Formats: sequence, C-alpha cells, structure tokens
Amino acid sequence: MSESGNSRVSKKITAEFKPVNIEERKRHSNVSQMYWARQGKITEEMLRVAAREELEPELIRSEVARGRMIIPANINHTSLEPMCIGIAAKCKINANIGNSAVSSNVAEECEKLNRAVRLGADTVMDLSTGGDIDLIRTVLIKQSPIPLGTVPIYQALQEVGGKPEDLTIKAMLEVIERQARQGVDYMTIHAGVLQEYVPLVRDRLTGIVSRGGSMMARWCVAHKKQNFLYEHFDDICEIFKHYDVSFSLGDGMRPGSLHDASDEAQFAELKTLGELTSRAWKHDIQVMIEGPGHIPMDQIKLQIEKEMALCHEAPFYTLGPVVTDIAPGYDHITSAIGAAMIGWYGASLLCYVTPKEHLGLPNPDDVRQGVVAYKIAAHAADVARGRKGARQRDDEISKARFKFDWKRQFELALDPETAQKMHDETLPQADFKETNYCSMCGPQFCSMNMSQDLTHLGKECQKQRAEKRCDEPGEKTSNIEKGEDDAVKNI
Amino acid sequence: MSESGNSRVSKKITAEFKPVNIEERKRHSNVSQMYWARQGKITEEMLRVAAREELEPELIRSEVARGRMIIPANINHTSLEPMCIGIAAKCKINANIGNSAVSSNVAEECEKLNRAVRLGADTVMDLSTGGDIDLIRTVLIKQSPIPLGTVPIYQALQEVGGKPEDLTIKAMLEVIERQARQGVDYMTIHAGVLQEYVPLVRDRLTGIVSRGGSMMARWCVAHKKQNFLYEHFDDICEIFKHYDVSFSLGDGMRPGSLHDASDEAQFAELKTLGELTSRAWKHDIQVMIEGPGHIPMDQIKLQIEKEMALCHEAPFYTLGPVVTDIAPGYDHITSAIGAAMIGWYGASLLCYVTPKEHLGLPNPDDVRQGVVAYKIAAHAADVARGRKGARQRDDEISKARFKFDWKRQFELALDPETAQKMHDETLPQADFKETNYCSMCGPQFCSMNMSQDLTHLGKECQKQRAEKRCDEPGEKTSNIEKGEDDAVKNI
Repeated sequence: MSESGNSRVSKKITAEFKPVNIEERKRHSNVSQMYWARQGKITEEMLRVAAREELEPELIRSEVARGRMIIPANINHTSLEPMCIGIAAKCKINANIGNSAVSSNVAEECEKLNRAVRLGADTVMDLSTGGDIDLIRTVLIKQSPIPLGTVPIYQALQEVGGKPEDLTIKAMLEVIERQARQGVDYMTIHAGVLQEYVPLVRDRLTGIVSRGGSMMARWCVAHKKQNFLYEHFDDICEIFKHYDVSFSLGDGMRPGSLHDASDEAQFAELKTLGELTSRAWKHDIQVMIEGPGHIPMDQIKLQIEKEMALCHEAPFYTLGPVVTDIAPGYDHITSAIGAAMIGWYGASLLCYVTPKEHLGLPNPDDVRQGVVAYKIAAHAADVARGRKGARQRDDEISKARFKFDWKRQFELALDPETAQKMHDETLPQADFKETNYCSMCGPQFCSMNMSQDLTHLGKECQKQRAEKRCDEPGEKTSNIEKGEDDAVKNI
Repeated sequence: MSESGNSRVSKKITAEFKPVNIEERKRHSNVSQMYWARQGKITEEMLRVAAREELEPELIRSEVARGRMIIPANINHTSLEPMCIGIAAKCKINANIGNSAVSSNVAEECEKLNRAVRLGADTVMDLSTGGDIDLIRTVLIKQSPIPLGTVPIYQALQEVGGKPEDLTIKAMLEVIERQARQGVDYMTIHAGVLQEYVPLVRDRLTGIVSRGGSMMARWCVAHKKQNFLYEHFDDICEIFKHYDVSFSLGDGMRPGSLHDASDEAQFAELKTLGELTSRAWKHDIQVMIEGPGHIPMDQIKLQIEKEMALCHEAPFYTLGPVVTDIAPGYDHITSAIGAAMIGWYGASLLCYVTPKEHLGLPNPDDVRQGVVAYKIAAHAADVARGRKGARQRDDEISKARFKFDWKRQFELALDPETAQKMHDETLPQADFKETNYCSMCGPQFCSMNMSQDLTHLGKECQKQRAEKRCDEPGEKTSNIEKGEDDAVKNI
C-alpha cells in the first residue's frame, strides 16, 4: 500500500465516503468481508474496526483481502460490535465458556459471558456439550456484543447419539448450516486431522487432546476412510459465504504435553491447514489457524514461524501455550507465560486457559481469572511489539502510582474491583485513598514517597498537593499523612 | 573441566573423600565458600549441594571459585540445608516476607515462612521494617531450612530514628555485624547508588522504587557526599568473611515502570555493581546481582546480556520483572511472565512478586500465590534451558493425566491441595478419582479417553485397567465408567 493511496482513502472517508452496508452485501452470493475487501470495497464493519484500532480503513481492507486479518461478523449476529483479529491490530483474547454434560446451565453460561465481556474478552467460544445446546447458543448470541465461535462437531456428535463413528458429513453440514443461521461468527473445523496422520500419535504421552481431533481420528480409524471434513471442505465454504462465517481451522493434533510438542503429527496437520487456508481463500472465506497447546518456552518462536510459513500468514489463534505441565490449578499462569510470548512473536488471538484446566469445568470466578491473565498477556505482547497506544495505559497508571492517586490507579487497572479490594484489605478507611503509602512499606519506608522530589513529575505533584491544601482548608489530611509531609519538608 | 578430571574427582568422592568441614573453616580468617573453593577445596556444603543438584562436586567448586555460583550459608545458620544459586544449577526462587509498621506480627511471619518453604521457596528474605525486627529475624533464622536474606539498611534506618539523612556507616556496620552474627545468609547492600547517578532519575515516571536505593539517594543529596556504602565497601567485606555472608548487590536504581526501564540510571548503577563484584571477589566474598523490576518483554534479554557483561557473570537475582504495569492485584502473573523468560535467558534466582504488590503487605495466601507462580516460572526456565531432570516431572504428570491416575496427578502437582480442591469442586465423590474424565468434558467428550487406544501408552493402560478389573471383582467401577468402557470396546 503506497502512502499516497493511504491518504487518498482517508480523505475520502472523512468527507463523503460511504462504506458498503450489510443490505448491499446481502444482495450478492458472497457476503464475506474478504470477498468485499478483495473487490476493493470498505465495508461498514471495516470502518468501525479501523476506528476501534486507530488504524486506516484502507489498511484494514488490505489486510482482510490479504488474509492476514479477519473480521468475524456473521450477518445474523445483530448485537455484534465488529472487531478484527490480525497481526496489524492489537492482540486479542478469547474466553471459552459453555457447559458439559456434568455441569452448568443457561443462567450460569450467561453470567460467564457477561463477566468475560466486562473484563475485556474480545471473542467468546460456546463449547457446550450437554443439555439444550441450541437454546444456550441462541441466548448467548443475542446477548453477546463480541464474536461468538463454536465447534459444531460437538453438537453433531450429540445429535448422532454420542458415537464418533456415527458422524456423517450430512449431520455435520446440517449442524453447521443451523449454527450459521443462528449467527455464529466463527467455527472450529477439524479438517486437518487426516487419516494418514493418526498413526503418527502412537508414541505420544497424551495422544490426541483436542476433542474434535480425537472424534475425527476415531472416525477415520473406524471407517478406514479420509476425514469427511477434509473431503467436503468446499461444501462448508459454500455455507460460510452466505453468512460470513470465518474458519478457525482446528488443530486436532496439538500436543497435550511438553513431551508431545512440535512433533511430526502436529506439523503434518499444520501443513494441511495451510492447504485448507488456500482452499478457503479461493472462496473468499476468512480463516484463522488454531495453535497449541503445551509448548516449552524454547519452542514457542518455532510455532509461529512454522504457522506463518505453512499457513500463508493467516492469523494465528493459540491455546496458551502452557509452558509446563506440572501446575494443575494454575494453568492460567503456566499458559499466560506462553501466550504473552507467542503474542509478542506475532499470534493474533490468544485463547484463555482457566485455573480449572485439566481439572474441571470453569465457574464464573475461573472465567475472571482466565480473562485477566490473558488481558495481561495480550497487552504485554502489544507493548513488546510497540503497537500504537499500547504503552500509554502503563504510563498513565505509573503516573497515578507515583502520585499516590489511588483512585485513578484502581480505575486504570485491568480489574479495578480486585485491585481496590486488595488495597482495602489492610487500609480500608477512606483517608487511606489519599495517603502517600500503602501497607506494604508503611509511611516511613515508601520509596516513591522518599524519591518524589528527585523527579520533575514528583515536584509537580508535591506542588499540586500543597496548592490543594491551601485552597481547601476543610479537606484536612490525616495525622499520619501530616507526619509524612513533615518528613518531606525535612529533606 | 576435562571429562577425566571430572570422573577422577567423582571417584575420590565416592571412596575415601573427606570434604572440608565447618570446624576446619572456622580456624581460618575467611570462612567463605568462595575462599575455600579457590583453594581447590570441596566443602561439606558443596558436596551436599552437588547431591541435591545431581551435579559433580568439582563442578560446584569450580563455579563457586569462578563466582558464577554462590552457596549462601552463614556459619551461624545451623538449621540450614545448603543450596546453591548459579546458572549451572536449577533456577531458584526467593519469597519476601517480613512485616511493615502498618501490618503483621511474629506468628504471621512464621506462618508465611513455613508456607513458602512447604511450597518450595529456595530462599527467603525477611524485609521487616516495623516492631521488634531482631526478634522476628532470630525466630525466622532458627526455623528456616533455607537461606535467609535481609536488607540491613531497613533496621539501621529504624535505629537512627527514621530519617535517611541520619544514617551513618557506623550505624550500618553495627547492624550488618549484628545480623551476620545472628546467621543471615545474604544481605542486600545498595552500594551502587552513587551520588552522581541521582540526577539521572529526574525524567523518570516513578523515581526510585527501591527502598534502600531511595534512602541512599536522599542521604547523598542531603550531605552532598558519596554513598557511604560504596566508600566503605571493604569494611563490609571484612565482616562478611567472618560469617560467610553473601552480597546481594542491590539495584537501587531499578525501574519502577515500563517507562523507566533500561534507562541511563539503571545501567550506570549496574556498571558500578560490576566494579563492586570485583572488589568483593578480591576478598573471596560471594556475590549475586539484583535486577529489575519493570521491563517490557522485548527488553528482557538485554537485561541479562548487560548483567553478564558488566558483572562478570555473577548470578543474576531478578525481581520479576513485571511485563506490564496495568494489572495491580495480578502482579504475580505480570511478573511470572518476565521471570520465566529471564530465567530461560539465564537468571539464577527469581524474587517472587505477590498479588498484593503495589497495593499492600502480602498475607499468607498471597505468599502461596507468589511462590507457586514463581515455581512455575523457574521450572519452565529449567525445561527451556534443558536442565538435567527438569522435564521428567512434566512427563510423569502427563502420563498420570493420560492414564486418568488422578491421585498421582495431584501428588505431582506444584500445589497438590489446590489441584485436588478444584477437581473436587464439581466431582467430589471418591468414585471420580477412578473415572476416565472430569467435569470439563464429561464422559462422552473426553479427548484423552477417545484417543487412548491410538497410543502405546494408552493401550498398556487399558490392559492394566482390564487386568485390575478381573483381579478385583469387588472393586466394581461406577455405572458411568461402565458406559464408557462399552464405548471403548466399540471402536
């Protein structure tokens, strides 16, 4: 994209520019963002995404056309606020919710959705596998302002009675069509688990840990036939183009332990996902690629290099990765480490892992833990990649911290409620929102307090405090703080 | 070290080898491990450390002699089980405990110590700044099987009445001597905060965030004189050699925000710490170097490269680093990311950060959160560096996971109690410790269950389960599990 092209588009957009709206797209056989981007058209969704990202609309269009960015926005998901996933934009996070046959219900899933959205999840996947799956999904889609993804094979399995061997392409296409109509924005399709790859897992410690992957593997073994999702991939594309559903090409062969990381099975499938990406792009269908999983730190960079090379730079959507297997109960942390790193290296969407991973279905508090851990990872990645505007929030909260502006510090925190609760655990009185210290060091040992007058910011802040004190004689500070102020004067 | 040399030493050690014991060391003017290592002697402590690390005693000796490893072991800390800190050994973690003037007491500090030790902390620092500091410290040292470090300037400040300007070298040496006699294994000394470095912080957002650093800066500014710890560094060395106290050369100028990372003030001090390292080594005193703090991911590698180059490869002891400032309440996570990475790059000791950082004094549960997050970081670093034996635990727990051996999985977890509690939250009955699934996926959707017979390990495991069932007809499995077994037979 030339600079002049860029500014020409911008000019048009600020003046009389009219983006392609959804009604116009619906009059064509392909409503996908990629189709329109490739026609050189900027859609309403691209425009809104550009505003959110503070990027040029033309950059959004060209990245979507190139396949390096997706805007998962099913035309039937009317409550959606469009967002994008791609290396040119900020790193995003996904929260998995959904029940299992053993646990949870509609109300609890809605609570998980709301909590995830409130804390900043960018997309959500409904992985429900039990009860009335259609009901849960339609309720969630109606409520969700963020894209919602699914793994349609779960529902297909439920509908054929629970045996993977009984799955058929007909049952799958029927479920995919229904979910697309309901407004699902992206779907995980395990079309890369080829028959010939199944024997490659025989020396693994943890076999196949993707649920969809293991279903397809069992189907292939039982029928001695090729994966029907691979064989009928173009039929899925035909459905997707009517609703603009994006592919999340499933990594059915992802490693489930450090031992199995970066093995032949994993990379064989990744190569096939690259081939499927090209096939989807021929239909102008948007694609992202799912990635692992369980990867030691020294192999994380390799993951993204392989993905970019084999899958033509389609956005990479990784599950963590966890960097050690030994901490069940803390896999939001083991995986936030890997997620931050792979985000820095170039992954576009980080699928959260909650503390319950490997142990049970997450409850709403686990969702909170997972989302916050991943907001940290994604933001740290944005900062490390130098993405525009990312560091600003760090600088703002650091200023508030140095100025002992506790309220502002809480406001700027990823989870204000938790930050304030922790502060108030030892110093709950309102007075202590104004003091130059917390309970960690106490008044005498606060380093920032001691070093205030050594910096420009600190001097300015001291001046402001002094002025405030003169202006508002009624708003006297606490005794403890007065003691401190004497100390400051004594420097 | 040649291989033949290596095996010669090993042979000696397994046969009639007698290491230098503490009584022999006490008859000399310098009892430090480094002094004896440089005499070519292997001490009892080196031998025990070698056994713990599964390394050759001669390697331990040579690394200690070279200054790339320390064994912090004050001769008066009699309850100590010697350990080492250095790049040739496993990555270690430190837990900070201690009260502040606002919060905590002796009993609570002991609880924090015990919890930290139980969860695997390798060293502990008593950072008490309020109440009867001598009492807390002597109680903690008596109880602690791990090295205990302090920051003696805190007590010195308390004893001169709380004003940094009133600190003197006499007061400091008195406190250092007393703490050394009590058995403190390593001490943070902020001798690198030189007078001429203080103006370098003027454009920082968060000034000086090291408590000792800000005290020394204020002292220098008030007296217009050079840091007295720098001027009298050799006097400190004289005390240290009588007890074998190790230096933890304090990073008084570490950044307290991403904005201030890697700035001139930080690296100017680091260069001085390198100079002080050489001075300490002339006295055969062991040294490690403290490091930051707040560092974005893309600058973490630079930290260790600078430290190694400027400080002659003395072990690097970092505080995190946190990789973003925006998550107060979750800084055990923001910092575990940085800690894992810097551990992988070569840091030897990772000082934990708890969820309470920036908000208040940690309580015993915060200590748990911090220790576990850092055990994760250190272990992930060991795995990524390929340290001997590190990956074994990951492989064992992965096997247990694939075999649905829940009890073994809990046993091998970093925090067994939490892992089991989370599992039992949805499936508490004893039966469910034997089932081939958890509440995350339920029986029908467990991927590992579905892919068991695709791997050698899975087949072996199925055989064992079948045999067990034949042997023990009384121990019938639950109905749910029977349903599953039918499914497996149907493959």
